[in-house]
Amino acid sequence: MNTESEIKVFAGSTGKDFAEKICIYLKSQLGKSRVITFSEGNIYVKVEETVRDKDVYLVQSIGLRPNDEFTEILFWIDAFKRASANSVTVIMPYFSYAKGDKKDEPRVSIRGRVCTECIELAGADRVVTMDLHSPQIQGFFKKPVDHLFALPILCEYINSLKIDDLVVVSPDSGFAKEARKFARYLKLPVAIGDKEREGHDENAKIIEIVGNVKDKNALIVDDFSISGGTLIDLANELKKRGVNRIFACLSHVLLNKDGVTKLENSPIEKLISTDSVYNPYVMDSKKVKVISVAPLFAETISRIHKRESVSPLFNKVPKEVLQIEE
Amino acid sequence: MNTESEIKVFAGSTGKDFAEKICIYLKSQLGKSRVITFSEGNIYVKVEETVRDKDVYLVQSIGLRPNDEFTEILFWIDAFKRASANSVTVIMPYFSYAKGDKKDEPRVSIRGRVCTECIELAGADRVVTMDLHSPQIQGFFKKPVDHLFALPILCEYINSLKIDDLVVVSPDSGFAKEARKFARYLKLPVAIGDKEREGHDENAKIIEIVGNVKDKNALIVDDFSISGGTLIDLANELKKRGVNRIFACLSHVLLNKDGVTKLENSPIEKLISTDSVYNPYVMDSKKVKVISVAPLFAETISRIHKRESVSPLFNKVPKEVLQIEE
Amino acid sequence: MNTESEIKVFAGSTGKDFAEKICIYLKSQLGKSRVITFSEGNIYVKVEETVRDKDVYLVQSIGLRPNDEFTEILFWIDAFKRASANSVTVIMPYFSYAKGDKKDEPRVSIRGRVCTECIELAGADRVVTMDLHSPQIQGFFKKPVDHLFALPILCEYINSLKIDDLVVVSPDSGFAKEARKFARYLKLPVAIGDKEREGHDENAKIIEIVGNVKDKNALIVDDFSISGGTLIDLANELKKRGVNRIFACLSHVLLNKDGVTKLENSPIEKLISTDSVYNPYVMDSKKVKVISVAPLFAETISRIHKRESVSPLFNKVPKEVLQIEE
Amino acid sequence: MNTESEIKVFAGSTGKDFAEKICIYLKSQLGKSRVITFSEGNIYVKVEETVRDKDVYLVQSIGLRPNDEFTEILFWIDAFKRASANSVTVIMPYFSYAKGDKKDEPRVSIRGRVCTECIELAGADRVVTMDLHSPQIQGFFKKPVDHLFALPILCEYINSLKIDDLVVVSPDSGFAKEARKFARYLKLPVAIGDKEREGHDENAKIIEIVGNVKDKNALIVDDFSISGGTLIDLANELKKRGVNRIFACLSHVLLNKDGVTKLENSPIEKLISTDSVYNPYVMDSKKVKVISVAPLFAETISRIHKRESVSPLFNKVPKEVLQIEE
Amino acid sequence: MNTESEIKVFAGSTGKDFAEKICIYLKSQLGKSRVITFSEGNIYVKVEETVRDKDVYLVQSIGLRPNDEFTEILFWIDAFKRASANSVTVIMPYFSYAKGDKKDEPRVSIRGRVCTECIELAGADRVVTMDLHSPQIQGFFKKPVDHLFALPILCEYINSLKIDDLVVVSPDSGFAKEARKFARYLKLPVAIGDKEREGHDENAKIIEIVGNVKDKNALIVDDFSISGGTLIDLANELKKRGVNRIFACLSHVLLNKDGVTKLENSPIEKLISTDSVYNPYVMDSKKVKVISVAPLFAETISRIHKRESVSPLFNKVPKEVLQIEE
Amino acid sequence: MNTESEIKVFAGSTGKDFAEKICIYLKSQLGKSRVITFSEGNIYVKVEETVRDKDVYLVQSIGLRPNDEFTEILFWIDAFKRASANSVTVIMPYFSYAKGDKKDEPRVSIRGRVCTECIELAGADRVVTMDLHSPQIQGFFKKPVDHLFALPILCEYINSLKIDDLVVVSPDSGFAKEARKFARYLKLPVAIGDKEREGHDENAKIIEIVGNVKDKNALIVDDFSISGGTLIDLANELKKRGVNRIFACLSHVLLNKDGVTKLENSPIEKLISTDSVYNPYVMDSKKVKVISVAPLFAETISRIHKRESVSPLFNKVPKEVLQIEE
Repeated sequence: MNTESEIKVFAGSTGKDFAEKICIYLKSQLGKSRVITFSEGNIYVKVEETVRDKDVYLVQSIGLRPNDEFTEILFWIDAFKRASANSVTVIMPYFSYAKGDKKDEPRVSIRGRVCTECIELAGADRVVTMDLHSPQIQGFFKKPVDHLFALPILCEYINSLKIDDLVVVSPDSGFAKEARKFARYLKLPVAIGDKEREGHDENAKIIEIVGNVKDKNALIVDDFSISGGTLIDLANELKKRGVNRIFACLSHVLLNKDGVTKLENSPIEKLISTDSVYNPYVMDSKKVKVISVAPLFAETISRIHKRESVSPLFNKVPKEVLQIEE
Repeated sequence: MNTESEIKVFAGSTGKDFAEKICIYLKSQLGKSRVITFSEGNIYVKVEETVRDKDVYLVQSIGLRPNDEFTEILFWIDAFKRASANSVTVIMPYFSYAKGDKKDEPRVSIRGRVCTECIELAGADRVVTMDLHSPQIQGFFKKPVDHLFALPILCEYINSLKIDDLVVVSPDSGFAKEARKFARYLKLPVAIGDKEREGHDENAKIIEIVGNVKDKNALIVDDFSISGGTLIDLANELKKRGVNRIFACLSHVLLNKDGVTKLENSPIEKLISTDSVYNPYVMDSKKVKVISVAPLFAETISRIHKRESVSPLFNKVPKEVLQIEE
Repeated sequence: MNTESEIKVFAGSTGKDFAEKICIYLKSQLGKSRVITFSEGNIYVKVEETVRDKDVYLVQSIGLRPNDEFTEILFWIDAFKRASANSVTVIMPYFSYAKGDKKDEPRVSIRGRVCTECIELAGADRVVTMDLHSPQIQGFFKKPVDHLFALPILCEYINSLKIDDLVVVSPDSGFAKEARKFARYLKLPVAIGDKEREGHDENAKIIEIVGNVKDKNALIVDDFSISGGTLIDLANELKKRGVNRIFACLSHVLLNKDGVTKLENSPIEKLISTDSVYNPYVMDSKKVKVISVAPLFAETISRIHKRESVSPLFNKVPKEVLQIEE
Repeated sequence: MNTESEIKVFAGSTGKDFAEKICIYLKSQLGKSRVITFSEGNIYVKVEETVRDKDVYLVQSIGLRPNDEFTEILFWIDAFKRASANSVTVIMPYFSYAKGDKKDEPRVSIRGRVCTECIELAGADRVVTMDLHSPQIQGFFKKPVDHLFALPILCEYINSLKIDDLVVVSPDSGFAKEARKFARYLKLPVAIGDKEREGHDENAKIIEIVGNVKDKNALIVDDFSISGGTLIDLANELKKRGVNRIFACLSHVLLNKDGVTKLENSPIEKLISTDSVYNPYVMDSKKVKVISVAPLFAETISRIHKRESVSPLFNKVPKEVLQIEE
Repeated sequence: MNTESEIKVFAGSTGKDFAEKICIYLKSQLGKSRVITFSEGNIYVKVEETVRDKDVYLVQSIGLRPNDEFTEILFWIDAFKRASANSVTVIMPYFSYAKGDKKDEPRVSIRGRVCTECIELAGADRVVTMDLHSPQIQGFFKKPVDHLFALPILCEYINSLKIDDLVVVSPDSGFAKEARKFARYLKLPVAIGDKEREGHDENAKIIEIVGNVKDKNALIVDDFSISGGTLIDLANELKKRGVNRIFACLSHVLLNKDGVTKLENSPIEKLISTDSVYNPYVMDSKKVKVISVAPLFAETISRIHKRESVSPLFNKVPKEVLQIEE
Repeated sequence: MNTESEIKVFAGSTGKDFAEKICIYLKSQLGKSRVITFSEGNIYVKVEETVRDKDVYLVQSIGLRPNDEFTEILFWIDAFKRASANSVTVIMPYFSYAKGDKKDEPRVSIRGRVCTECIELAGADRVVTMDLHSPQIQGFFKKPVDHLFALPILCEYINSLKIDDLVVVSPDSGFAKEARKFARYLKLPVAIGDKEREGHDENAKIIEIVGNVKDKNALIVDDFSISGGTLIDLANELKKRGVNRIFACLSHVLLNKDGVTKLENSPIEKLISTDSVYNPYVMDSKKVKVISVAPLFAETISRIHKRESVSPLFNKVPKEVLQIEE
């Protein structure tokens, strides 16, 4: 890589907003490119400025249209490589198929591995992502991965809300380890719900809550929510147990229109999340507070470009990264 | 491969109808499987019977929802391979991204190669397809490809229509070589239109028609049509030049609702095509005659399974393959 | 694979006992082979009978001498492949480096992926293993993995002990999901301990126990134990809370001499585990009951060979697989 | 790549003349190297100056001794890579096996893909070539290809001849699209011949000529000629139809001694081509005008080296590139 | 592989004679195929019968036209693989580029590795060869290699000559180990010449001879001879030291016309070699006795096909393998 | 690579001493890192400073604990690559498994190839090693290898001893070519012993000695010694033949405690070798003189870093490289 060269950030079709925020932080110009979706369904991508020997950063999550976004990413990487880019880094704040990380039933695909292999085959040299569904997915990649965490940014925002008597609540024992990290950062106690998921049913019922929550305010934490079901069930359960105000905090928010409506009618006061997924449904919701992680990714790109260590960003983010969020 | 073992045909979500026709021909049972599309967009596939050491045939085109179909195919292959299938053959009557076969502009992706590489990486051992956009695409595959032709089946149907004074018309010089093959099979003369396509505009205007068409009936031939525009423009042009009845004949038909409406209002009397693409829009159209190539693919699978040569099917199809079409 | 051919099982230097038990079950002869460790440290392996076009099963865990065992496995696979074996299946009841499954700190290796890639590069066609540290490790393999579970075998033995008032205890929330599977199989309640591991310290202190244990008997369950520390600390904690008899149950037992001595002096009455690891230290201990999973692996090999489904063995084992254990 | 370092151009045994012209343009020194062909047929290559971390450009077409040239290229790439070159770019103005780009008959090899894969396997990082037989061949490469066009250089020369009443003639409909590009550049009308090739017969007979040619001068264009047969047959045909002067223009000229003799005795006044193939037979012919494309390749190398865009050279060449041709 | 199926042997253009001898031994029919060398130098290969799911054996050495033969082999493998052969075994009695097995000077290619990698990339599943220049070359292949030895066949012939007082002579210390194997098989003493080769000079001068040769008959042994120079120099040297009759024995004979003439005029009475190389020059020479190793390769193919061990052929050949040589 | 950046040398657990000597020569700081061997046998490696975009040199031989050292090297490479190092060069002065370079018996592994492939798979970009067992092993690597020779350093030391009437003795004809290189450098005569090794017996008996040794002093040369057996047997044999003082000189010394004791009691006056292997046994022996080749490797690293040619070091070393040895 060439530290002197200009940083070249390009956006996939659903990564435009995020990429523009990155460019503001980096004081750089978004790369010129073009996507056409033909009437028969095919996507066509074109890079519209030279990238010869440049280090290219392509911004697009695999989010709410995962197959389109995945396929488009493959085409972009190929286009950059054939156009003689020196390296291609995929900035993929959310990677939806990371959920397909194991063979928990006979004769299923490990979809996360399929996607990571194709991304590498297409020619990606590095991936930057955030809060993968399980940390093992880094091992599905052969190329280096910079794996960022939304936790410090989310926690700083929550701190700024100055809510008294808050307790961090994990929806299940599987997320307890993560919940404890939130609790440690926020210097709060932790409580653990216990649910069991049957088969591929997206909803699952709560069994019990371990830890003291009565007369307190609750901050439910989780990595993502699709339908909002688990969150709202837990919120209802917490209400029954005498909790006052209820907040929720997620790395990735995948609620569709129905999910948002359900949220509006739930006891959850505020859902705090990030812009890792391009999600038009949450934009109008008054209950959803979206905090941008674009500065975090921008700072990461800047450090990659300047050959500086990225790991200091894992536990604590510098002021500049929060700044934009005013 | 084991010639004694039962043939195991499975269908992707848009390949079900086609696969069932294959199974009727083969007198075999469609393999049990399940696809779920979750509300957040992810596809999940599951093979629901043992395929251990079996030779599996997966049926699905990359057609009108190309990104979903492509991604789903990758997951199926991975699922079969991890379930210890002996081999996986992808039966892909239409391969939409074959159109992305060259770098005709700077800094674009060769999308056909991206897809073929991913399909092979996922573990496909062989591909059976039909009338690829250009024959060179076979060279994008490293694994063996059985490349079938709709021509004999389409021509046999046209022969059965017994139309007098027919002339085969190619819409442009690029398809002239193919048009001449139709003419030779049907023992008819040929005429060649001449259009020029500007940029990525899906429509293109006709320049002239070389060959005698006046007072004749015309059979326009092409490999596929997306909007129907080229066909209809040519038909209008032919009308102006004194052509009587006009027929069109395509390997793959990608018309959407608008395209079908335009076709209904055009001077084209009948559009003859195949079921290579899952296309719900053409089903109700009285002007579109869909001839199934499922028996052709079924016969191919049968020959692969019995270790017989497939090439005799390229120029002439046995009666059984036409039979089903009554 | 050829269902008629004789099954060819070979043993690595620490897999001999296990392989012989497999051969007894399969009524087959252990393949002839030879390992030399030269005085300068190099291992040399030689297959001493023809394996041309045979389906070979190589038996050896990556256990208490992981680097020697890993390297030897690579050499065996290469020797079989160069000797024209048709396929090589690695029977690896325990895979020690599966613990290296993520980048939980900056700049470490994902050792599990390194090993799986090398095993596949050397030419392994399939791996059969048991109770991997995390299910995602299957995704580190590209080749099919048959992932077995010791749970039914361990539970059947525990049932045979007919202990009253038993409660299943998970040492931490991370193993809670697994513990609940034991509880469900045994129709028992569950309790969950809560420990926190600091850095790479192999010991970790217990925080609390959630669930009713007083005046009951406890069955601590875990996937493996290295020093025995966690188990014994938990046992002491359980004693303080009024538990009567304490049993422990592990898939893989890695205790060395010191660990065994500590166990002998602990309140744990019996440690029930399997022979997945070649572990000479536990052989003389009266407190350790080793149940062989060799019949489970033998039955799996038999099904692979006869092209039958392996998944029925995941939840319930047939009598023959338990039989040998009298 | 290092923009400051000297450009290192090396020549294969038939690429020497071309490479030297490149070096004149670049004002650089040809790299020292040595080829021996032993009496038993083996080629041996040696790089005779350090290339450690250098960006190397190897110049050699796959031309009239394609197997020797192909094999030698593989050895050169390997030698450069093992000598720690930073990158190897193969400058291959003509790629003979590009003609083997499809499976037009059952059970043939796709020779173009075989060669491109071997070239990449040997370690080539990029290929620069010109007027490939079909544009799809770029998709046979995974590495970036800079695909140049002789058209602007050939047309500029033709313009300099100031021939009146010229019409561009394509020998068949397959080359019509390309012929039209010549016509557009030269602002001339176009006519299209129509031949049909039977099997692997190198000759093929002309059927008809579409377009007005009577009393005009003709410029036959094609991508290459092996025996000259098609050109001369077409020229004779044109003569019969009242054409006055006849010129021909090819990207690549493969005529051997016989072909040159036939050309001398034909109605073709001048054959204009390039030095893309090392062809000793055409050197003495008064009818063949060879225009060097070495400056075009040199300018391309220069731009690659300076990280500038190469695509502006596709449609229009700067004066310097034409200059040398005086 | 399928033991019941007919063996399918095909010949490359210089492997025809050898392949026919193999077919006589195997009582099988040579596969139908066709090679064209076009006037511009390109080779085209076509398999002219179905090989679907067959185990194919392709016969061709890389011999006196190594680049043509190497390239042709790649095309054949590709053609067989794309025609859905189950496996392709390359029968390559001589592999000329095995001489390029090391980097004995800076910045040269390891040509043997380049060739083996390309052969494997093209799709070869196995290679059968004989007396490679160094045994390490097997390690250049990843796929299994059956490495045969001409020694028993050559020795049996020499034994049949019943020459008294014979001593085996190695031309240098590098071949001493091999010479000793001949001596052991023939129960004869050994003497060692000592030459030094300077640079790439094909000739090298003899320094001294260690061992008793005076008044004896000598059998010079070596793996191959290109110009005959070393052999004849050594023969002259032996004459000076009072040797009576002189014989030479080589695995591979590469003498061209000049070499044969030199041999005719030398004190060597008879040069005994094999037909591993297609060498038209030695056919007419009365001094050269060519013994066919085709039966040895045929027997190997037969054993591969019947899944029998090949290694027994390494030290001793069955009568049938010698028989044909009457 | 970046010539301006600081050189980053890291040490594996047995490469520490050697790496520190390299750093002294380079006036650089050894990279911070950490290795833990857990009680259950697993190795864990951690890089403790940023290596983002750095060119990393990892120092560790595969020596007396070959399996641990090999596995650790794989983990280091993976850790560096995942930490985004620009390149990883493995400095491996001794590569023990290079001895496994051929299939000299049926059904063995080519262990050298297995190891080189895994090292490349893990991500090594280059290897620097010394006096490989056979030069062909470079061909097992696909990546560039810098292959150094201890000969000039060993010879310079021997010259400094100023021993009269010295003759170089090769233990067998296989090493004769190498012995002659020593003789040429030292301007001494050569004698050749003749031993034969039976099977895998590490000892082998001497047959005879060719060349004049009586009343001279002998310098036995070899590439390595494991038990010392061959050296001592040869020394005894030399003594019988009237040799006065006996010295031995090896590239790599693998003697264990027993071997050292045997050496102390043998007629060998001094064994001169290098520190290529981490060997604690030879440190206290008065008879073993260990000369460091660390400066040679350091100078090589420096040249790689400065993009200078390494080959001048093959035949003659600059003073600085010897200097440290005072």
